[in-house]
Amino acid sequence: MHIRMSFHTRGFSAQEAPIPDIKIINPETLGKPLGQYSQMTRVKASEFLFIAGQLATDKAGNVVGAEDFDAQCVQVFANIEAALKAAGAGWSNVVQFTTYMVHSQDIPKFMKFRLREFPRMFSNGVYPPNTLLMIDRLVGEPFLIEVQTVAAL
Amino acid sequence: MHIRMSFHTRGFSAQEAPIPDIKIINPETLGKPLGQYSQMTRVKASEFLFIAGQLATDKAGNVVGAEDFDAQCVQVFANIEAALKAAGAGWSNVVQFTTYMVHSQDIPKFMKFRLREFPRMFSNGVYPPNTLLMIDRLVGEPFLIEVQTVAAL
Amino acid sequence: MHIRMSFHTRGFSAQEAPIPDIKIINPETLGKPLGQYSQMTRVKASEFLFIAGQLATDKAGNVVGAEDFDAQCVQVFANIEAALKAAGAGWSNVVQFTTYMVHSQDIPKFMKFRLREFPRMFSNGVYPPNTLLMIDRLVGEPFLIEVQTVAAL
Repeated sequence: MHIRMSFHTRGFSAQEAPIPDIKIINPETLGKPLGQYSQMTRVKASEFLFIAGQLATDKAGNVVGAEDFDAQCVQVFANIEAALKAAGAGWSNVVQFTTYMVHSQDIPKFMKFRLREFPRMFSNGVYPPNTLLMIDRLVGEPFLIEVQTVAAL
Repeated sequence: MHIRMSFHTRGFSAQEAPIPDIKIINPETLGKPLGQYSQMTRVKASEFLFIAGQLATDKAGNVVGAEDFDAQCVQVFANIEAALKAAGAGWSNVVQFTTYMVHSQDIPKFMKFRLREFPRMFSNGVYPPNTLLMIDRLVGEPFLIEVQTVAAL
Repeated sequence: MHIRMSFHTRGFSAQEAPIPDIKIINPETLGKPLGQYSQMTRVKASEFLFIAGQLATDKAGNVVGAEDFDAQCVQVFANIEAALKAAGAGWSNVVQFTTYMVHSQDIPKFMKFRLREFPRMFSNGVYPPNTLLMIDRLVGEPFLIEVQTVAAL
């Protein structure tokens, strides 16, 4: 039996928005995800949103939470939410996350952040696929996390 | 002259599956790929599959092949295949791979793995585009390779 | 007010090419991009192009600009352009870039390259989303930059 959730979300405007069919799936033939993410998304949609990797910056471009990983997570996901909302979308439209972090020591903090915030953000309890990668550095030294998002409308 | 291969694969279920048109292309204006991959995919499909980066874990979440790069490759691609099959798809549905490795010393082993396994997996001899990146670390210290996949249905 | 640009580009051949609707958007709720990129793309298209990460190689597979970051940028984007053209597309079809670099010291050079070249490449002055990541290494030691591209037709 697959753990499968299907839901529909309304797109941007009435005339151009067929309803996307987003199924987030954890096949039983794969291991249970070890965190707040799922194994895959199957999506049938007429429109896609490609959001540039978001960092912990405010509207003026200043770093938020320079040495505070959790504060950076809050800001990064606030920025992604702003991008989604600007397209009339929300968290349920996300089909893929790719998360880049600078310090592996922050992995437990990232798990904790998602455990605390994702149930509120993804109210159906179904989390998009995520790929978690530790890299050398982001565009500026103070940045600890960057998240790239694809969504469907 | 382009090296171009076009093939059609059947989707998940009869009523919702138009046939995706997946063309894997190596334009002559670009260099010949240096390994078992192609330069690009052109795809016309009604559905996409975004598979979270797969690691060498078994169904219980245990690491497979802790210090054995080749064993990890086998497990990673077995997991991707399980994900594809759960959506009624197969290797011919893949439109993009992104491969993350921890040690550049493993690159020749990755080449060897693909030379050995890809001809069987991709029976038409046409391999999807891949981007190969060396990064600091994956989610756990023992993991040596992770592969993120996009497929079309 | 959003900074929003919408444009249409012709696809590959008359009979199979509906016009893609590519909107590149900088929502005012997000910070102004700090370089030659935008915050997101909203795209309605019947076809997508997934281009393998491009390196500074010539048609014979030789490295171009071994210790010259700017020369590598020129070659990488020439290769991407060749891939786009092989599908009857161009820069205005790009919906996402992901840029991998090896040395953070090259970031100012990358900014400079884009400031110089992007206005010519993207003649409407609207640049696709980009995610900029510093990683350990690319497939070969001499490579300093790799760019992965998704386009819509």
